[in-house]
Amino acid sequence: MLYYAKAGAELRFILSAPDSLIYPTSRRSSYIYLPMRFLFFLFLLVSFESGAQVSTDSAAFFIKDIYRQTLSEEKAYSWLTTLTKDIGHRLSGSENSLKAIEWAKKTMDTLSFDNVWLQPVMVPHWERGVSEQVVMVSKAIGAHSLNALALGNSPGTGPKGIRAEVVEVKSLDELRGLPDFMVEGKIVFFNRPMDLGLTSTFSAYGGAADQRTSGPVAAAEKGAIGCAIRSLSTRQDDSPHTGMTQLSDQIDNIPSIALSTNDANFLSDALKKGPVELVIYTHCKMYEDALSYNVIGEIKGSTHPEEIILVGGHFDSWDIGEGAHDDGSGCMHAMEVLYRLKKMGYKPIRTLRCVLFMNEENGLKGGRAYADSSFANNEYHLAAIESDAGGFTPQSFGISAGANTSLDTAMSHMAGFMELLEPYDIELKAGGGGADIGPLKPKAGVLMGLRPDSSRYFDFHHSDLDVLENVHPRELAAGAAALTSLVFLIDQYGIGK
Amino acid sequence: MLYYAKAGAELRFILSAPDSLIYPTSRRSSYIYLPMRFLFFLFLLVSFESGAQVSTDSAAFFIKDIYRQTLSEEKAYSWLTTLTKDIGHRLSGSENSLKAIEWAKKTMDTLSFDNVWLQPVMVPHWERGVSEQVVMVSKAIGAHSLNALALGNSPGTGPKGIRAEVVEVKSLDELRGLPDFMVEGKIVFFNRPMDLGLTSTFSAYGGAADQRTSGPVAAAEKGAIGCAIRSLSTRQDDSPHTGMTQLSDQIDNIPSIALSTNDANFLSDALKKGPVELVIYTHCKMYEDALSYNVIGEIKGSTHPEEIILVGGHFDSWDIGEGAHDDGSGCMHAMEVLYRLKKMGYKPIRTLRCVLFMNEENGLKGGRAYADSSFANNEYHLAAIESDAGGFTPQSFGISAGANTSLDTAMSHMAGFMELLEPYDIELKAGGGGADIGPLKPKAGVLMGLRPDSSRYFDFHHSDLDVLENVHPRELAAGAAALTSLVFLIDQYGIGK
Repeated sequence: MLYYAKAGAELRFILSAPDSLIYPTSRRSSYIYLPMRFLFFLFLLVSFESGAQVSTDSAAFFIKDIYRQTLSEEKAYSWLTTLTKDIGHRLSGSENSLKAIEWAKKTMDTLSFDNVWLQPVMVPHWERGVSEQVVMVSKAIGAHSLNALALGNSPGTGPKGIRAEVVEVKSLDELRGLPDFMVEGKIVFFNRPMDLGLTSTFSAYGGAADQRTSGPVAAAEKGAIGCAIRSLSTRQDDSPHTGMTQLSDQIDNIPSIALSTNDANFLSDALKKGPVELVIYTHCKMYEDALSYNVIGEIKGSTHPEEIILVGGHFDSWDIGEGAHDDGSGCMHAMEVLYRLKKMGYKPIRTLRCVLFMNEENGLKGGRAYADSSFANNEYHLAAIESDAGGFTPQSFGISAGANTSLDTAMSHMAGFMELLEPYDIELKAGGGGADIGPLKPKAGVLMGLRPDSSRYFDFHHSDLDVLENVHPRELAAGAAALTSLVFLIDQYGIGK
Repeated sequence: MLYYAKAGAELRFILSAPDSLIYPTSRRSSYIYLPMRFLFFLFLLVSFESGAQVSTDSAAFFIKDIYRQTLSEEKAYSWLTTLTKDIGHRLSGSENSLKAIEWAKKTMDTLSFDNVWLQPVMVPHWERGVSEQVVMVSKAIGAHSLNALALGNSPGTGPKGIRAEVVEVKSLDELRGLPDFMVEGKIVFFNRPMDLGLTSTFSAYGGAADQRTSGPVAAAEKGAIGCAIRSLSTRQDDSPHTGMTQLSDQIDNIPSIALSTNDANFLSDALKKGPVELVIYTHCKMYEDALSYNVIGEIKGSTHPEEIILVGGHFDSWDIGEGAHDDGSGCMHAMEVLYRLKKMGYKPIRTLRCVLFMNEENGLKGGRAYADSSFANNEYHLAAIESDAGGFTPQSFGISAGANTSLDTAMSHMAGFMELLEPYDIELKAGGGGADIGPLKPKAGVLMGLRPDSSRYFDFHHSDLDVLENVHPRELAAGAAALTSLVFLIDQYGIGK
């Protein structure tokens, strides 16, 4: 692409972009424009003081400035840099998670919110211990070390390790259909790839994740002594992807690991040449539950302080990489929403609350503790919005209704103001929310989730690739701007009941 | 994000994604589903043979399969890998550009199109020569080498180089307002950054690009002997971004370079401490025009072969990096559209043509030659669609009307079928097209341009960072799928006149 003065097409492209709605690109006209803009902004701030709704023209103007400031400052990215590089990953119950909590509390304390507090919650405390060692032994091709990670919550093999022949299956159904003797004493290898033909990688993940969440228990029920799964990844590479596996309280749980997609193919190819044994050493262990905290910041509403608009993410991450997309990005998004509105002089009608939930990854204790406390205090969440799908360019918000809300009514009411986000390519779509805000459903107006472009999310998810370098500052900022705009719009215009 | 079986929110998210419209995520139901899908597909292929329109339900089904196959196969990425790694960058008139043309022709020859041909076109032949050397000399902070690239088409300094004091300005207006004696014999330094507060980086580019396109001539008119511009980049880094500068035939053109954004800041900071001289050696030179070619592939229409639907990009690139996003991506998109529809057994009603235009970057000769030839042959382009904004996740198509078409009529007609792309987050927006297809406007129905997410484009554009590693295969595939679907829809339903 060039900038070709005589080629009208690109020029029209530029002029038709949303920026030209308000911000002229020519320097000359901005000299006239800037003072006008400042006066209008002053007028808006006075309107906000009154606690009454502003016109949609004023709202469009304000949203334009939300985007302008958020994209220019890249505040979420600057916080995320500190979180990922100075602290790092933060599994529930870990020392790092407490450092992160302390940092978030201290940071929010500097932002002039009305209240900042820690909400105690007991969380599972699982540790990986020293690195996993996994070796594949095959008569046909010899012994090879494989890239693997223990699955979260799973028991370790201990220093003696386990060694057994591998039986490969593509699904839980296929495993259950095997005669027991083919599984007893073996290591079950689930090797169904994510279906990349699906448009959303979340759908592809949803279609393959049962292998990780339920595979190890299903294998144990058939008498297996260990379980390996193909990493839930959208790429062929050497990075294994961990994640929670469910435990059984009926039978002994077995050690379980994820293999990198390259090594899953390698193992599968070896199995075509004859029997293969896996030797697995994992040193993970579940400890007593530990004390942890949700981190909460709040700006009180002027006219309807009893109606809460929550925006949040989960602050725990897996214990590899840096939890940059999952879900450092969502947490920094949530902090930026309140920071940005405060910095712009906005006085909310309702109460705005930013919540960093602990322990989404392997327990959801933070989300449940928050809802329990909220119900005990008779709170009403007009809207609870979660960002937990990565720091990529936002495409839409998904919406679900709380127990006493009509989704149709809410969606048709909100369609009126969501048009203001159309220039930013943000839509409203039925369905969605987030794991942490799910427990609020009985007493919430609407539950919503930010849906960014999902193309790259599962390249990194739960692996050592989920680091700051794979988050783009401008894409992260676009998510923060979309969330800030949505919170502003719901605060102004409600959800229609 | 975890896959938490008991947390209903995420499950609903997954179920509400477009994939679930047709493709069940459970393995069990797909056993029943697959044969049904195959039968329906056979039925569709028979419908296509008849050359008549299919129902929108059938179209939705076919588009689902376009996405499925395109995302799974990642064909455009595989071609782009060959183009970037085996051939590399391909400036008009270069040996590499001829290698690329030969490769594209040979590749298309294997794809069973009806016609593949080369269209001769004379193009400018500018060469950079050996690497630029730029040194900044300041009494206050000493001598420092700067990262720079000569601007495309600009004359070189030759082996003697130039050396002069620097005068910094922020705009053409500021330069023109300076007294001549402050500019005469100096090197003018344009240092206005792209405005990152704008939502579209194309707007930010449009607002800063006059410095590169018109700055050197404006500086020469005031008596400057050289010109340096701040790179048009969205990042602070050490990679300079080149691009075309316009030449004057009234006065002597002067050597001009782009400095990396880091070095632009460094130079500007030095100027705050006292006078600074730049020493510039560039070895670029314009040669005689060279013979080159547009590469064209075609599938003839069954019922209306006289109506052409063109999809294209430009095949030349700057002479650094690999021209991966600009515009290898657009060219591979165009090839994949015809490849995919052919592979799926689709028989088009209209004639589909894929055009790889030569010399968009520094002359637009390919686009003009194509239009001249088309007009001479009395051809009618029902739609000409360009992909020249990178291989990122597509967000919308921009549309402009040809000389004898009503934009309103076309848009309201197309709105009917563009709804089928709504599940893929693709919209239709007024305005847009592309530089290469611009010359077709007098005899085209509509001109359209693919608009991908622009967040990262100008991080790489015209620099050594525009390489395959910065193209994501799935994002590239999403663009190919969107273009293929659009071409299919226009072929089926026309543009409403």
